[in-house]
Amino acid sequence: MTQNLIAEILEPLQSMRLIDPHTHINPLQAASSTLADILGYHYYTELAHSAGLSKSQIEEPGILPKEKVSRLVPWLSTIENTAQYAWLLEMCQVFFDFKEDRITEANWESLYDNSLKKMQAPGWEETVLERSGLDQVYLTNDFDDPLQGFDIRKYVPCLRTDDLVFHLAKPAVRERLQKATGIHPGNSVTLKQAIAMLFDHFQAHGVGACAISLPPDFTPAAVSPSAADAVIAKVFGGKELTAEESNTLSRFVFWSLAEFCAEHQLPFDLMIGVNRRVYEDGVFQGQDLFDRRVSLIQYKALLNAFPSVVFPISVLSETCNQELVSFSWIFPNVVTCGHWWYSNIPVYIERDTRGRLQAVPRTKQVGYYSDMYKLEFALPKFAMYRRILAKVLAEDFVVERGWSVEKAVSLGKTVLRGNVEAIFG
Amino acid sequence: MTQNLIAEILEPLQSMRLIDPHTHINPLQAASSTLADILGYHYYTELAHSAGLSKSQIEEPGILPKEKVSRLVPWLSTIENTAQYAWLLEMCQVFFDFKEDRITEANWESLYDNSLKKMQAPGWEETVLERSGLDQVYLTNDFDDPLQGFDIRKYVPCLRTDDLVFHLAKPAVRERLQKATGIHPGNSVTLKQAIAMLFDHFQAHGVGACAISLPPDFTPAAVSPSAADAVIAKVFGGKELTAEESNTLSRFVFWSLAEFCAEHQLPFDLMIGVNRRVYEDGVFQGQDLFDRRVSLIQYKALLNAFPSVVFPISVLSETCNQELVSFSWIFPNVVTCGHWWYSNIPVYIERDTRGRLQAVPRTKQVGYYSDMYKLEFALPKFAMYRRILAKVLAEDFVVERGWSVEKAVSLGKTVLRGNVEAIFG
Amino acid sequence: MTQNLIAEILEPLQSMRLIDPHTHINPLQAASSTLADILGYHYYTELAHSAGLSKSQIEEPGILPKEKVSRLVPWLSTIENTAQYAWLLEMCQVFFDFKEDRITEANWESLYDNSLKKMQAPGWEETVLERSGLDQVYLTNDFDDPLQGFDIRKYVPCLRTDDLVFHLAKPAVRERLQKATGIHPGNSVTLKQAIAMLFDHFQAHGVGACAISLPPDFTPAAVSPSAADAVIAKVFGGKELTAEESNTLSRFVFWSLAEFCAEHQLPFDLMIGVNRRVYEDGVFQGQDLFDRRVSLIQYKALLNAFPSVVFPISVLSETCNQELVSFSWIFPNVVTCGHWWYSNIPVYIERDTRGRLQAVPRTKQVGYYSDMYKLEFALPKFAMYRRILAKVLAEDFVVERGWSVEKAVSLGKTVLRGNVEAIFG
Repeated sequence: MTQNLIAEILEPLQSMRLIDPHTHINPLQAASSTLADILGYHYYTELAHSAGLSKSQIEEPGILPKEKVSRLVPWLSTIENTAQYAWLLEMCQVFFDFKEDRITEANWESLYDNSLKKMQAPGWEETVLERSGLDQVYLTNDFDDPLQGFDIRKYVPCLRTDDLVFHLAKPAVRERLQKATGIHPGNSVTLKQAIAMLFDHFQAHGVGACAISLPPDFTPAAVSPSAADAVIAKVFGGKELTAEESNTLSRFVFWSLAEFCAEHQLPFDLMIGVNRRVYEDGVFQGQDLFDRRVSLIQYKALLNAFPSVVFPISVLSETCNQELVSFSWIFPNVVTCGHWWYSNIPVYIERDTRGRLQAVPRTKQVGYYSDMYKLEFALPKFAMYRRILAKVLAEDFVVERGWSVEKAVSLGKTVLRGNVEAIFG
Repeated sequence: MTQNLIAEILEPLQSMRLIDPHTHINPLQAASSTLADILGYHYYTELAHSAGLSKSQIEEPGILPKEKVSRLVPWLSTIENTAQYAWLLEMCQVFFDFKEDRITEANWESLYDNSLKKMQAPGWEETVLERSGLDQVYLTNDFDDPLQGFDIRKYVPCLRTDDLVFHLAKPAVRERLQKATGIHPGNSVTLKQAIAMLFDHFQAHGVGACAISLPPDFTPAAVSPSAADAVIAKVFGGKELTAEESNTLSRFVFWSLAEFCAEHQLPFDLMIGVNRRVYEDGVFQGQDLFDRRVSLIQYKALLNAFPSVVFPISVLSETCNQELVSFSWIFPNVVTCGHWWYSNIPVYIERDTRGRLQAVPRTKQVGYYSDMYKLEFALPKFAMYRRILAKVLAEDFVVERGWSVEKAVSLGKTVLRGNVEAIFG
Repeated sequence: MTQNLIAEILEPLQSMRLIDPHTHINPLQAASSTLADILGYHYYTELAHSAGLSKSQIEEPGILPKEKVSRLVPWLSTIENTAQYAWLLEMCQVFFDFKEDRITEANWESLYDNSLKKMQAPGWEETVLERSGLDQVYLTNDFDDPLQGFDIRKYVPCLRTDDLVFHLAKPAVRERLQKATGIHPGNSVTLKQAIAMLFDHFQAHGVGACAISLPPDFTPAAVSPSAADAVIAKVFGGKELTAEESNTLSRFVFWSLAEFCAEHQLPFDLMIGVNRRVYEDGVFQGQDLFDRRVSLIQYKALLNAFPSVVFPISVLSETCNQELVSFSWIFPNVVTCGHWWYSNIPVYIERDTRGRLQAVPRTKQVGYYSDMYKLEFALPKFAMYRRILAKVLAEDFVVERGWSVEKAVSLGKTVLRGNVEAIFG
């Protein structure tokens, strides 16, 4: 009976068109070219590596796509239990007419060839967008991205700021900044001028949000101009910063970004809690993990200082979700946002969704984003989320609280799409 | 089938009369006078503010009750998904004959007028107590509360000690202490004499418990009299304390309270984990949040030092519940207590309840308290808890373990009421 | 319908024979002699003590088994809700033909007498092994255990190393080490020689794993030989170590153990997160608790330094499970392992199981171990786990993902037994 109810709620959610508010899509090559683009997604390479496939096999220089797939396929049996494998199977079934329930050494080659034909057919990108119901896809752009060559109404630029906040000590990053802005910053004023130019550039190209991922030990704080001047002069003079100076610089740049977000009325996506390069010999993008000992209380000063900036917050550790729920319930400028990375599996999505729907204003929840690198992933990832959302709506609202199906569906549509438009639109 | 079973277990739990072991009721004005007393509860004002209603609208000086309600009502649609809204609806339906499933700009005024008639009718307080099945309501009294003018068998005084432990640096608090006791403390001996008088005063008025809310970074410890003497002389001499001295003072007073609890055989309610005034511009009582990085291990010294004192412990972060379960399973003097504040929503209550029922002796669990400020809230809050309790009893005990319904109901009654009597009675 | 499905999946899991990869069995006295061996398990004594039975009653010197049981029985009614009590009941029903659903003051004596007859019958140990389907039982052996007098193919030795890492400051431990190896270590080289002898001794007796339990604040790190030399000379010279020196010694020994595990191709079981002697007046083995503020990020250096060592990791706090899932998903040498102690109750097992099955390669999960001290406990503990495993397989794989029952059962068998053989075999 509940299964029927879930299906009844799911149907209208599934037929909705979507906006995907956070992805890593390259708009110049949005869809996959071969199955290797799909199986090369770090979720598969890192899981296969974790199960025993050597990194050198996966990342051999010059390896051809079909060869790469052929090396990964034998390991799929070790990860077929994972949610990530379920996405793969659903993609192959929906997009490539795959009829079997396992990708094996016996059947992968015909799948590869069939999928290649599909992907090489004209209009594949449009086909995927259409089949997935995607109206808009938000990007993650480097600060010096020219933002040229694509339709910014379809692919919405977002200013990714990790490099500015955490990597100005790298010469390459400073050079990119100088090249992008024509400014060689020597103090807090000129650094802010350079950042202002980046915001102007992105604003001129329809920017949807400013975004950053943050390590667990980062605590934003205002930095005095004089303290900032000293470290900026030092780092742009090519000198090494101490850990404390480096933190001062990060805080200064981060705080400045929030100021520009206020000025430009731009949401500032905070993705909180990732430690980079924990597994040093991991595959590409398969090296990061986290320390769950992080608290949103670290963001107290920021949230109080910028009441006009909307902060859609993602947390990497599921143990942080109740804090996110509570902070969104109290702070007008905090919005719950999606289910990020290690929390993007059903068991955590379901519980996070319950907590948010039970205690955060319905207008302050961005239900989901795909975080995808290739367009084909939106479909199975959103499908997973929609099934869970329908289940929670059925159980917690229709069964427990006696809501009508219509009312439950309306709540689902709000978190799935309505809020995305209201918050980022 | 399980739904029927849950209903069968729920029925006898719902018809039970209750003792509410922790509230903020003012016994001289226990019930609401207008709907503004209900909608003015911080759960609604903070959620409406979070959704967009300005604080100045909510807290305008001299605003009339009906005007206040008229300003909040348009925002209710943004929070109708929340558990808190479900309480509101249930109160209006049960107490005020409200027949609709939403409170809207179109229907609120008649609800307001109907509810006003009910609340102004003679015996409203008794009506609410009776309809809610409340036999006793525990209070939260300031240390200098005269405890006069109410029936202490119905409204049981509890000594709230936050001011003593954390706010003696405020002149007003020291003055209240001096006024209440006639003592101007100058050292540890005289401060303890003053506290002793407070305990005597409360004991003479049938005190049920000593209670305190504690910030996440507090770690109780014994303080030597000489160390205490120095900070007590300083603070009662009107001098500023350093952070370390302030912590010494808090520890000394807290430890002394535990000593008096031992002497008076009084349970000491510990409500662990709240940070005050995190959102500085929040509405009244809507500013507090928490840092979930707290551990009950911080209470090791206390729990070992006072084996004869029962500590009913509430934790603000749901991530602390397993520690609470484990500490209650090991320490004879630790009792699990209710579902506090940000953990008082179904998703967390259900999981906490499962953990406690599966691993803590049945005699060491206080199932629920309402934490209410106005009497009308006990009904929907306890109703929420009882539905969840019935669900857990049905699924984990009758279905999973083959218990009879009768046995499951008996367990439910023990945590719902029996233990309250045994522990606080 | 789901209940039928769960039963269908459970049946083949229940009829499987088992290997129990972590226990505290004494192979010279593996089974219980009287009911006091069962009720004397710390899970019952600590819960009865927590509920009110005094330690002096439980641990009276020279108390006879039957008397001990008679003192515990009256307290069983206070813990009949617990999962631990459910194990007790299942053991009595399965092994001792107990027909009732409660052990009471009225019926315990006949249960005692019946069980005594069974346990005194010849071949009781074999009967229990057979009835429980146990093929192999892994032990936890002191480093100086002679490993004599038992069948190491049935009872597999494991080298427990807590004493070496954390207790070399105790004269008795140093003496045991000297006696076992003939070496009186004076520096890092000779200490490693001594440890090498222990590994050789265990290797010669079919050792299955090296194992250790670790406090929440321990962070492994390599220690330079010179730094190690200084503290080793000091501690083996009988001098007191400072806290920092003590930590250096622990790190050195721990790191050396990992080196020997690499050399001997031995899995290194890490049981992370226990604080010893938190409740100082607790009953035997009922004094330990935990601080959940621990992160696997503390093991970053170790996991990177020893890619060839498999680390089956158990975490004491359920809030650490998502980190365990994520680290196992990324690090090839991390394996999820069982549900330890305070996490070994259904509510946590179920959620941990979901997370692991949804995101960790199927080959990298050791589903369960009993942690038992007496053989009779494997049956109810594994039964509890298998019921939960069947439920998760039914709901998350057959219902949600459309798997066949056969495929789901195969996954269950892999985590229940297949991986134990592959990882420890």
